[in-house]
Amino acid sequence: MTPRYLEDLSQGDRVTAGPVEIAEADTIAFAERYDPQPMHTAPAAAARGPFQGLVASGWQTAAIVMRLIIDAKLLGGAPILGLGVDELRWPAPLRPGDRVMAEFEIASITPSRSNPRFGVVRVKVTARNQNGEIVLSMFPSLWVPRRPAAQ
Amino acid sequence: MTPRYLEDLSQGDRVTAGPVEIAEADTIAFAERYDPQPMHTAPAAAARGPFQGLVASGWQTAAIVMRLIIDAKLLGGAPILGLGVDELRWPAPLRPGDRVMAEFEIASITPSRSNPRFGVVRVKVTARNQNGEIVLSMFPSLWVPRRPAAQ
Repeated sequence: MTPRYLEDLSQGDRVTAGPVEIAEADTIAFAERYDPQPMHTAPAAAARGPFQGLVASGWQTAAIVMRLIIDAKLLGGAPILGLGVDELRWPAPLRPGDRVMAEFEIASITPSRSNPRFGVVRVKVTARNQNGEIVLSMFPSLWVPRRPAAQ
Repeated sequence: MTPRYLEDLSQGDRVTAGPVEIAEADTIAFAERYDPQPMHTAPAAAARGPFQGLVASGWQTAAIVMRLIIDAKLLGGAPILGLGVDELRWPAPLRPGDRVMAEFEIASITPSRSNPRFGVVRVKVTARNQNGEIVLSMFPSLWVPRRPAAQ
């Protein structure tokens, strides 16, 4: 698959990906390794906890959305190189059985001042569950190559 | 383990956790599921890629640091409820075999205006590899209960 270069992208471009369904066993396995708290690992304790039921670690939600970014092929066949993320939020929890869809919109495109072969693309990411509730939003900044000069 | 309430925390409080060593098989397994790109999944292709070797997905780095936050028991036995994260950065890549340590410093404590039983604690997180290079930095905001009034 051919890469999409900086020149191939426009502010306001939008792609979507998903839905992907979240299994309880996956939620628990991720949390046991990376975020071992009863609200993520223990259904009975979680039912009495702040979310009245088991919820995914916010870091698993972010990882699931990363997978949707890959699936959306935002940059075609070019690698997705993240410089950083701003304003990462989890307005509603992600629960086992939820189906997640994500929307990616190009918020800005800034050619690098220090490197003429690259630019920074800021993407507005919004992930929703099957009820339309936002389970994650963020603004990642990606490092995107410019189209090489014709040989 | 007893919880640490908002009143038990002070700006400038610092805890550390780690080191934890990252195994190549774990790096690849995480990436195959959540961030399937050759720089994270395929050692030979990664050697020719932007980092001249296999590197962990930035989201796995974040998840590993979350585990260190849990291990550090920043809030004692109280749950770690993240409202969001600002300025997430990955200045240097995390590579298989690296040993990660993290430092957590309380940057600010703000009692909630809308809910007298809670406050927001902003934490400066800095994770380094065995060479002292920063592999992740971020400012998570946590929702922390105030000490209940004496009965």
